Amino acid sequence: MKAIVKEKPGKGFKMRDVPVPDDLAPNEALVKINKASICGTDLHIYEWNEWAQQNIKPPQIAGHEFTGKVIKTGSNVSLVSTGDVVTSETHIPCRKCIQCKTGRMHVCKNLEILGVHRDGAFAEYIKVPETVLWKLPEDFPKKYASIMEPFGNAIHTCFVENLAGKNVLITGAGPIGCMATAIAKATGAAKIIVTEIMEYRKKLAKQSGADYVLDPTETDITSSVKQLTNDNGADILLEMSGNENALIQGLESLTNGGTASILGVFPGKITFDINSLVIFKGIKLYGITGRKMFETWQIATELIKNKRVDLSSIITHELKFEDWEKGIKNMLDGKAGKVVLDIE
Amino acid sequence: MKAIVKEKPGKGFKMRDVPVPDDLAPNEALVKINKASICGTDLHIYEWNEWAQQNIKPPQIAGHEFTGKVIKTGSNVSLVSTGDVVTSETHIPCRKCIQCKTGRMHVCKNLEILGVHRDGAFAEYIKVPETVLWKLPEDFPKKYASIMEPFGNAIHTCFVENLAGKNVLITGAGPIGCMATAIAKATGAAKIIVTEIMEYRKKLAKQSGADYVLDPTETDITSSVKQLTNDNGADILLEMSGNENALIQGLESLTNGGTASILGVFPGKITFDINSLVIFKGIKLYGITGRKMFETWQIATELIKNKRVDLSSIITHELKFEDWEKGIKNMLDGKAGKVVLDIE
Amino acid sequence: MKAIVKEKPGKGFKMRDVPVPDDLAPNEALVKINKASICGTDLHIYEWNEWAQQNIKPPQIAGHEFTGKVIKTGSNVSLVSTGDVVTSETHIPCRKCIQCKTGRMHVCKNLEILGVHRDGAFAEYIKVPETVLWKLPEDFPKKYASIMEPFGNAIHTCFVENLAGKNVLITGAGPIGCMATAIAKATGAAKIIVTEIMEYRKKLAKQSGADYVLDPTETDITSSVKQLTNDNGADILLEMSGNENALIQGLESLTNGGTASILGVFPGKITFDINSLVIFKGIKLYGITGRKMFETWQIATELIKNKRVDLSSIITHELKFEDWEKGIKNMLDGKAGKVVLDIE
Amino acid sequence: MKAIVKEKPGKGFKMRDVPVPDDLAPNEALVKINKASICGTDLHIYEWNEWAQQNIKPPQIAGHEFTGKVIKTGSNVSLVSTGDVVTSETHIPCRKCIQCKTGRMHVCKNLEILGVHRDGAFAEYIKVPETVLWKLPEDFPKKYASIMEPFGNAIHTCFVENLAGKNVLITGAGPIGCMATAIAKATGAAKIIVTEIMEYRKKLAKQSGADYVLDPTETDITSSVKQLTNDNGADILLEMSGNENALIQGLESLTNGGTASILGVFPGKITFDINSLVIFKGIKLYGITGRKMFETWQIATELIKNKRVDLSSIITHELKFEDWEKGIKNMLDGKAGKVVLDIE
Repeated sequence: MKAIVKEKPGKGFKMRDVPVPDDLAPNEALVKINKASICGTDLHIYEWNEWAQQNIKPPQIAGHEFTGKVIKTGSNVSLVSTGDVVTSETHIPCRKCIQCKTGRMHVCKNLEILGVHRDGAFAEYIKVPETVLWKLPEDFPKKYASIMEPFGNAIHTCFVENLAGKNVLITGAGPIGCMATAIAKATGAAKIIVTEIMEYRKKLAKQSGADYVLDPTETDITSSVKQLTNDNGADILLEMSGNENALIQGLESLTNGGTASILGVFPGKITFDINSLVIFKGIKLYGITGRKMFETWQIATELIKNKRVDLSSIITHELKFEDWEKGIKNMLDGKAGKVVLDIE
Repeated sequence: MKAIVKEKPGKGFKMRDVPVPDDLAPNEALVKINKASICGTDLHIYEWNEWAQQNIKPPQIAGHEFTGKVIKTGSNVSLVSTGDVVTSETHIPCRKCIQCKTGRMHVCKNLEILGVHRDGAFAEYIKVPETVLWKLPEDFPKKYASIMEPFGNAIHTCFVENLAGKNVLITGAGPIGCMATAIAKATGAAKIIVTEIMEYRKKLAKQSGADYVLDPTETDITSSVKQLTNDNGADILLEMSGNENALIQGLESLTNGGTASILGVFPGKITFDINSLVIFKGIKLYGITGRKMFETWQIATELIKNKRVDLSSIITHELKFEDWEKGIKNMLDGKAGKVVLDIE
Repeated sequence: MKAIVKEKPGKGFKMRDVPVPDDLAPNEALVKINKASICGTDLHIYEWNEWAQQNIKPPQIAGHEFTGKVIKTGSNVSLVSTGDVVTSETHIPCRKCIQCKTGRMHVCKNLEILGVHRDGAFAEYIKVPETVLWKLPEDFPKKYASIMEPFGNAIHTCFVENLAGKNVLITGAGPIGCMATAIAKATGAAKIIVTEIMEYRKKLAKQSGADYVLDPTETDITSSVKQLTNDNGADILLEMSGNENALIQGLESLTNGGTASILGVFPGKITFDINSLVIFKGIKLYGITGRKMFETWQIATELIKNKRVDLSSIITHELKFEDWEKGIKNMLDGKAGKVVLDIE
Repeated sequence: MKAIVKEKPGKGFKMRDVPVPDDLAPNEALVKINKASICGTDLHIYEWNEWAQQNIKPPQIAGHEFTGKVIKTGSNVSLVSTGDVVTSETHIPCRKCIQCKTGRMHVCKNLEILGVHRDGAFAEYIKVPETVLWKLPEDFPKKYASIMEPFGNAIHTCFVENLAGKNVLITGAGPIGCMATAIAKATGAAKIIVTEIMEYRKKLAKQSGADYVLDPTETDITSSVKQLTNDNGADILLEMSGNENALIQGLESLTNGGTASILGVFPGKITFDINSLVIFKGIKLYGITGRKMFETWQIATELIKNKRVDLSSIITHELKFEDWEKGIKNMLDGKAGKVVLDIE
């Protein structure tokens, strides 16, 4: 089969012919991939940055966001059947730790990640444990099926509290920030304010439903948010940038008793005034990782299936599998939302 | 001033000239009324049913849903000022019981109700304690301002759990059921299924955003709901009918672990199988009364102010004050959603 | 091996020699049983009441509350190992329905129950799916290990809300009611009031930590509870009796905004005034079934392991396996709390 | 009347004769003080540190933790009556901001603080708005009545989540840390682990119910906590030290998905790895300020009134009013838990 492979340490991927996986463990299924999409993590691996050097052991197939069809099941598989249309959680939980035993597999203490710790989804076939597969209706739009994993990140972040009727500040309008914007819109948020510095992304945020897009290089975020919210401040902060200043401005912009839901990953330690930004204001701050298995997936599926959320502007590119490098280039240039590869 | 008065026991109201209230207590404010709307409770008082006979002491001004402007304040008023545009909670809490002391005034043990226990809002002026007044922006649409109290009932019922991505069953499409339908739509519910038997109301439910309107005299509700929800059942029941069969069908239609939020008032005791309908399914059942002061009002205000919820089809009549009896007649005939009276 | 068997329809059990189960499915484990205890459900099967006639297909081994040691595992078992000390959830979830997929296996739509739908635990060995086994520390007290399943019911019922500092009313002082009493005591409940009519159980409730034990045949429960709670009413009702009057008195005794957690199973439909008992008071009512897998088990384990809860008075009989019928007789006579059988 | 007064900028207090307040506003009450206790904030004012210099405007009476009896009420007071035994919230909410209007007065945007922004409680009489007074039963132990405000801080911090059955780490064993320890004990926490470096406080923590007291200068906290919790980590962190290292060790010691409740005030900004300590672990972090009005007070009252919590070792000194400086000295030397002054 064709696959996009990190062949060896250093920059770049290669498209190669590799064997179809044929050694299914009893609880694994083989999935024929229909579409896959490109994640920022794939860019790190492509670029071979420090994180990639420490975490990836080439040769390995890249990619982890995908949809496809189950075509073969291991001897002990009972949760999916041949012919099922699926997408997949990419965090493989151990099922044994206390977190897994108590229904919180997304914070499993022994996670293994598709496309990071084992072969990924930029390929015609992939084998995955049945535990992480999520069945979709036959007629679920395939392009949205391929981005369910990052959309699930956005859902997870947005659902720590009911956004309906609340003023929401979203810091960072990358693909997941734009998805969060669309979710806030779909779920009845009052005012939706997004901060972003890149023009391309500002436009995407607007198209995704932002009422206001503020540029922190041009505007004082905290005072603008206060002004837009009747001098009250935002009720909820969704941090999607991984930028220290954005986080601090976001917390400053929160009203007393507000909620911060933080998905962005920061380049290093942060320094901030926890007294005035968190404690004295009685802030609730939630660290978000992965997706709840599978509450997040259920909500994500229902919102898309019933056309409650409009993600149409977020997928900016749909490319042939062979044109994968175009997609990566566009993303590296900051000229893309989500890029979907048509594999089948 | 002109007022619609229950003059004495027996059916009917009279429009009369009565004195403007001039004896403000230190914490009361005088409000010049702009619009008021008619509630089912007003119909009970008009009809002089058993409940009314036990609770109302004529002569008394009817009505309790309204908006207006503060024109005078008692000596110790600090929460509102002359000129403030307001609407009003109609449940006046005692501020002393443990419920009031712990931020749950909607379940106060000593509630006094506007238009029931004291003069109401079908008048040019009303005096009310400052505690229950809720300030609105100057440009808030006046007709929606006058129905904030029943809209608050709908909000309170809908917000026991996040509806986004959930399949919602609403039993009963009276005005508040239709408002709940509009809220479910506005906040991202997956499928919105409404049950109703009256044609006029079925149409209103559809216009308010229902995906499906089922008639229990024609359809088996439980099996229809299962069929519409991938054999799963509804995630959330919003009971708005006060009908025993509707409640039972609603609980039957819930999926295991589902939530029932019950606002409907029942004509008498109910008989049901609590084992199979509540206990074995692990149902959460919430009795809903009044509106949270003032979380509910804040959410209601934001949803309307930011045009997130579409209530346009729910106000079916806007009448001159003098034409009040037309409004009551239409409501008694089941040919109305909300009826708003233009008083100023 | 020796086992207590329901041989055929009709009253009674027999102790018989039966084969040790040797046909483990890939995900099953074989457990050598150390202790088992007798549940009210076992009495129903023994007595062959209507429920038993409809649900049990003899011949079948009775019993479902137990502890033991894993001595053999199926080919695909990964969650337990030979030598593990275990107790077991008795509700076997399907792992496939949406409830199971979203971490709520206790409300699985396709539950199979140990000792009801398949052979039970009154035997020297039992085979069970690995999914339901819960590992215990080696030195966990064996007698408490054998009652973890009903103790889990009590935990589940008590933990719908934090009892600390709250006035708690427990209706019914059977074994689980007494466990709930002990839990309320251990977790800082303010006043613990128990209602019960049988003398034996009243005494057990007192020993388990009740501050007051009221007899509804002698006392007006509602007014007594009000009097004991500064005229406020109970904050939380734990319904453990399955008696309609007890439920109604319990709901009447709740303060506005209070919480009812209902585990008791009722003999038939109930008739009650849902307006005044639930809706107008803003009551939250939770139907409780089974135990959360495995949050409930984790809490139960920690409370016992760290000696935070005193269950010493609740196990009233520890009998040799051969003396099982004595245990059943005592329970039928209402002269027992929990009865534990020493099997190993 | 006698009062302890900050007469002018600079170190120290003076006991002086000052006039009894006689100018009650309509909603104020005059309280004759029975006992008051000394807070760390009083020490800051005594020492005249930077914070005090910026916040205190001498001359002013110090102190804010107290109990007494209402002896006079303003013209519009309705929540308390002459003769009521009371203690007092020290944060005076504005009642007008959206936080106050929605039942969250503890995060009021315009708080005024007793003994900081207006005359305090180290005096024979104090006038306070009725809004902040909390009535106590006549027979409530007076010494505990005087420390209800800091005890309320501990309650507020401990009640963000049910501690029962959870492993709890408390960083810092000052008076509030010791109160939290006693609360964790009273409410069924599994293991209670406290970190502290001062010998006097280590002993107090032990007496208050700690299972383990660890000294971070002698022990690696993170690995010790893991070891004591079956390699799992703490479920809940209660941060009471305001020390950056303690916070970081506390977050490191939390298990994935754990909860951090943070009351400690930090001397300046903190620097930490929010990725690994909060985000990737899915931590919930709550900033805690003040006390919920009045849920916190209700729980605090019930726990003490019903003798569920043992605070006996936490009050280490009960002094005559005249001996106030001894109390301050002991506290400054780190040789005291709570110090209570007998004023009446």
